[in-house]
Amino acid sequence: MKTIYSPRHKGHSGHTELAEGVVVPGFEKPERAEIIRARMEETGLGPVVAPVSHDLARAKRVHDAGYVEFLGRAWEMWRAEGRDAPVAMPFVFPARGLRADVPPDHVDGLLGYYSFDAGANFVAGTWDAIQSSFDTALTAASLVHSGERSAFALCRPPGHHAGSMTMGGYCYINNAAVAAQWLLDEGANRISILDIDYHHGNGTQEIFYRRSDVQLINIHADPKEEYPYFLGHADEEGEGDGEGFNHNYPLPFGTEWARWCEVLEEARAKIAAYAPDVLVVSLGVDTYEGDPISKFRLQSEHYPQIGERIARLNLPTLFVMEGGYAVEAIGVNVVGVLSGFEGG
Amino acid sequence: MKTIYSPRHKGHSGHTELAEGVVVPGFEKPERAEIIRARMEETGLGPVVAPVSHDLARAKRVHDAGYVEFLGRAWEMWRAEGRDAPVAMPFVFPARGLRADVPPDHVDGLLGYYSFDAGANFVAGTWDAIQSSFDTALTAASLVHSGERSAFALCRPPGHHAGSMTMGGYCYINNAAVAAQWLLDEGANRISILDIDYHHGNGTQEIFYRRSDVQLINIHADPKEEYPYFLGHADEEGEGDGEGFNHNYPLPFGTEWARWCEVLEEARAKIAAYAPDVLVVSLGVDTYEGDPISKFRLQSEHYPQIGERIARLNLPTLFVMEGGYAVEAIGVNVVGVLSGFEGG
Repeated sequence: MKTIYSPRHKGHSGHTELAEGVVVPGFEKPERAEIIRARMEETGLGPVVAPVSHDLARAKRVHDAGYVEFLGRAWEMWRAEGRDAPVAMPFVFPARGLRADVPPDHVDGLLGYYSFDAGANFVAGTWDAIQSSFDTALTAASLVHSGERSAFALCRPPGHHAGSMTMGGYCYINNAAVAAQWLLDEGANRISILDIDYHHGNGTQEIFYRRSDVQLINIHADPKEEYPYFLGHADEEGEGDGEGFNHNYPLPFGTEWARWCEVLEEARAKIAAYAPDVLVVSLGVDTYEGDPISKFRLQSEHYPQIGERIARLNLPTLFVMEGGYAVEAIGVNVVGVLSGFEGG
Repeated sequence: MKTIYSPRHKGHSGHTELAEGVVVPGFEKPERAEIIRARMEETGLGPVVAPVSHDLARAKRVHDAGYVEFLGRAWEMWRAEGRDAPVAMPFVFPARGLRADVPPDHVDGLLGYYSFDAGANFVAGTWDAIQSSFDTALTAASLVHSGERSAFALCRPPGHHAGSMTMGGYCYINNAAVAAQWLLDEGANRISILDIDYHHGNGTQEIFYRRSDVQLINIHADPKEEYPYFLGHADEEGEGDGEGFNHNYPLPFGTEWARWCEVLEEARAKIAAYAPDVLVVSLGVDTYEGDPISKFRLQSEHYPQIGERIARLNLPTLFVMEGGYAVEAIGVNVVGVLSGFEGG
């Protein structure tokens, strides 16, 4: 399996996030991708290759054009305000009772207008990293499209929290959604997205909620108790044409392998029944027991078993990197999934 | 004119806010109210008296009951998480594409569920201060109801950004809205609210947007350029029964007295035409040229003129304290409005 990787992700560094009442260094940091890449090279699972540049028009197939353009100028607008703060961060949001139909002119307004939290922030290298992550996803998608059994898009920043016109949760462009749309535009009829990140992939759900050509399955911590809190309930089954194509499996804190695996089997049955042309896996390993911000209890030995079970679907499979924050273990666990898939 | 004031506001102290990429000490701090009270006493404008306790059911006339109850337990829920952070603050919000119809169980989710920014936070004394501010507004309202020409509710925390079920912008319970509703419930037929704070009173607008028994006039910085960014445009004129009863006057950065006063005259004409039983003034003095977070250019000499022009409406008038952050000047400017009214 080829891994697509660009060192340009490293420019997205030194950023912060608002969490639990304080601004802290971002949990989503460059070491994450570097440790995974090193582990890929160490295990010899396959070559690590650079992404090919793609037209941002492909991102605008699932994202609002004004949103994508703002991502490209947010940092410059912030800098132009002459702020001391080294990180561009929103602080007010068009939540309940406010209008989300009039984009403000001021950068502070725009940052909030296109966000749902203060967790997707900008430093000088952020936009370049976002673009490289987008290129990474589409380069991996094109490998699968051209006949390879699988590919791994080592995306950073991740994407699954990003909605059609909202950033948040470390995500800006929704790499998995962009890849799924690209595959459809290139001739696929149906795509399944299996999101196994610990956190619900609210952005991906929002993007495809009214469509039947993308089946979305999420296995994640119950939003009653866990971020992102405001999407990911079991009763969200899609709307209109999309009704019946969205499946959420919220699970309680402390969920262990036995229960998690049971749900994975349900998901596998749903995917098999849908018979997609390609399976896209939003791959997070923050289900790991040692993850610093998560509360499931999977162990490193379980990740190869996940890969193996996914492989048994016998589908062209695109893995897209999402979350996972126990940086020491992230390499072992991610490569565990991929090597389990290769052996499966 | 009597001033209603409670020292219990001082418990809301040491809190922080998220602004421009960093967590900073709250601009909305206890000194604000203390400087105003000292100036009241110094000028001898009238007695400063303590508020009488009121039933929170009166707050629930304009706020969601679950929201008010959450305000009362937010701090304890936060403490129960064993956090180091000394201030309870939301960090994710039900903005665009997310659900605002399922309250989470977790305190982090609930804080965001009931917020639109990270600017209305909790310390140990916050809830007590909120209640005292609510009592202050209703005690002042009852003075006007019982025949006094005017009264000044020295509310802290302020209220005009708080919506029916959202806190934000230093506001929790919307004191002016609660007072207006109390006056209606006690027999008034029509109330006008004139909001002259520099920032748009988005919460008050949201609460009364579909009603004709409250006329709302806002004179404020254009939300295209200024907080709260997502409400306060000129085209927001009310909906349903409320159509035609909401008037917004967004003004550009740098607005000076001549233009501001012109708009005040338009507002006065609208109030006179509506002929309310009582006028409630949401009194912010952050229109002052020296305000640290605002960009209008009114000078201290203009505040008495504002009071005088309001007095010429010849209406029973309740002043409710909102914003204003140049702490040295806040006393002079607030008492300037009130003494201008007394002399007018």
